[in-house]
Amino acid sequence: MSGTMKQVVLASYAKGNPKPSDFRIEQVPVPEPGEREMLLQTLYIAVDPLIRFSLDEKLLSGASRMDLGAVMVGPTVCKVVASNHPDYSPGDFVEGRTAWAEYAVVAPDQSDYRGPPRKLDPSLAPVSTALGALGGPGQTAYEGVVNVGRLKAGETIVVSAAAGAVGSMAGQIAKALGARAVGIAGGEAKCKALLDLGFDAVADYKEPDFADQLKAALPEGADVYFENVGGDVTLAVLPLLKRGARMPMCGFIAYYGVGMEGPGPDHLPGFYRHIMAKGLEIKGFAGIFAGQKGLDDIAGWIKEGKVRFPESLVDGIDAVPEAFSSVFSGHDHVGKLLVRIAPET
Amino acid sequence: MSGTMKQVVLASYAKGNPKPSDFRIEQVPVPEPGEREMLLQTLYIAVDPLIRFSLDEKLLSGASRMDLGAVMVGPTVCKVVASNHPDYSPGDFVEGRTAWAEYAVVAPDQSDYRGPPRKLDPSLAPVSTALGALGGPGQTAYEGVVNVGRLKAGETIVVSAAAGAVGSMAGQIAKALGARAVGIAGGEAKCKALLDLGFDAVADYKEPDFADQLKAALPEGADVYFENVGGDVTLAVLPLLKRGARMPMCGFIAYYGVGMEGPGPDHLPGFYRHIMAKGLEIKGFAGIFAGQKGLDDIAGWIKEGKVRFPESLVDGIDAVPEAFSSVFSGHDHVGKLLVRIAPET
Repeated sequence: MSGTMKQVVLASYAKGNPKPSDFRIEQVPVPEPGEREMLLQTLYIAVDPLIRFSLDEKLLSGASRMDLGAVMVGPTVCKVVASNHPDYSPGDFVEGRTAWAEYAVVAPDQSDYRGPPRKLDPSLAPVSTALGALGGPGQTAYEGVVNVGRLKAGETIVVSAAAGAVGSMAGQIAKALGARAVGIAGGEAKCKALLDLGFDAVADYKEPDFADQLKAALPEGADVYFENVGGDVTLAVLPLLKRGARMPMCGFIAYYGVGMEGPGPDHLPGFYRHIMAKGLEIKGFAGIFAGQKGLDDIAGWIKEGKVRFPESLVDGIDAVPEAFSSVFSGHDHVGKLLVRIAPET
Repeated sequence: MSGTMKQVVLASYAKGNPKPSDFRIEQVPVPEPGEREMLLQTLYIAVDPLIRFSLDEKLLSGASRMDLGAVMVGPTVCKVVASNHPDYSPGDFVEGRTAWAEYAVVAPDQSDYRGPPRKLDPSLAPVSTALGALGGPGQTAYEGVVNVGRLKAGETIVVSAAAGAVGSMAGQIAKALGARAVGIAGGEAKCKALLDLGFDAVADYKEPDFADQLKAALPEGADVYFENVGGDVTLAVLPLLKRGARMPMCGFIAYYGVGMEGPGPDHLPGFYRHIMAKGLEIKGFAGIFAGQKGLDDIAGWIKEGKVRFPESLVDGIDAVPEAFSSVFSGHDHVGKLLVRIAPET
């Protein structure tokens, strides 16, 4: 294969929330696969908010920094175009972590701890779900609700960023387990979408009466708080947690641009006071631990019609910087936000 | 019994850390026990820092407020002077929650969830240990190290306020379990006392090179952080926690006077970042859950010579306000700080 393609590189480190101008689109030759390598055509790029951690100029805890000018990398679904590797054939669909580019060369033998690209069966579910319900976000929701949150039938969970890829799955998994699910999202459209997905109640954090909405949605408090956000949303949730509540934490998008210290006052004393007064349990986690069991359970729930997988699509690699930035500014999309780079067929 | 006695009442709500002038000593008649009541002579008052939660004018999460002018109440060891209750006889030693006064009338049938005063066998251990190693502080240390922290042999625990009643027990319990114990305390005398108790290493938070001392004491990081303090001490510990570390939290004396919000910057974003980056597990707990099993194990370790119970004594009820206040200002006592109100015999 010859010709040129577009790719997204890091133009400047993010200050606060990422902006489209932090990235640059470059036109480069399509790469050639070497021995035991393959050439992938990118179909979908998932603009994963966790990528933000790599975009700080000054390295912070938990981050591994990108170089300026380097090609961005993240979760994708691709189609094999050419393969010099016996395990993959042209036409295969795969999910992996590859370049934000129209094409990418991958060496399956040199994969990191996530393993080589995962082959997808398009007859089981749309391949794009490998980036959502049947991928990292689904596993993250499962791990948080089932394993870390230990949510039981009859209990109540409250989910922040509930209209997002992880949050919308967390609420649906809670319902599938026989629990009550309350979602927090911004804007009427998102809140309505959550009720359509089966959430029992919602609270709109963009409304001035958010705290009252939340109180009304949680008349007896919550047993589990699925934490995606931090900041003002969390300060409103904490007083509503029950004694012994669990707080699985898989993200905190309100703080991604803040670094280690935000503007005062210091909310850590109040956070401590809630932890002690109620015997709260807080645990940071990543979805990868849910493993295949999580994906199998979710696939079963999808089959039974208990779980749906909402997606929002935007088109073309030129849209990636804007789509990624929108994740941090409270966009209007519901479910997993994907950029479609090329049609599947 | 007739005559008068002294008692300590609340003179004003605390602003920040409690001051001796927040309390007042009153001379009042010794009370008379009624039907199924008994009169206790107070021997030891434990100046428990958790009492601070009741001294805010504006009620905060987890607190039940004292009335101005009311007699202070807290953990004590007393001797029965006169009894109209069949379960208690004059000369019995008991541990309970009674008035900060030289004498107190107690109705064992009307006790709260803690149960009636616990009778002590002075032949097993000094009765004052019922307020330390073989009482609430011992149970708290046990619950945090064994049940919440799940510390295993070969692991490393770091303990803040390590020279205090709970901290000194936590480190010794860790050693009894075959783990490595690192203590954080203020001042050379306290640090030396911790090494004498068997701690493997110490760091002095009052020294300018505290962070370096802590790093040197934890060359491979810590598996468990026993949290008593919060504030700057905790900010120095967090970067040294290992992936998957547990953080049992039984107190946060640096924040008791702060309320829900301290002066900026906001350290909650950095706290979140550590939780996520390392998959930390944080849990608030109270010692009461360790129950009799905790006390039995500690008694066994004391018998085997593996655990000692350091105490610091000051004398006389007039010393109570000063002793209580000193707990918040980094006093020089090691182990459980007790005020001896009367001799045991």
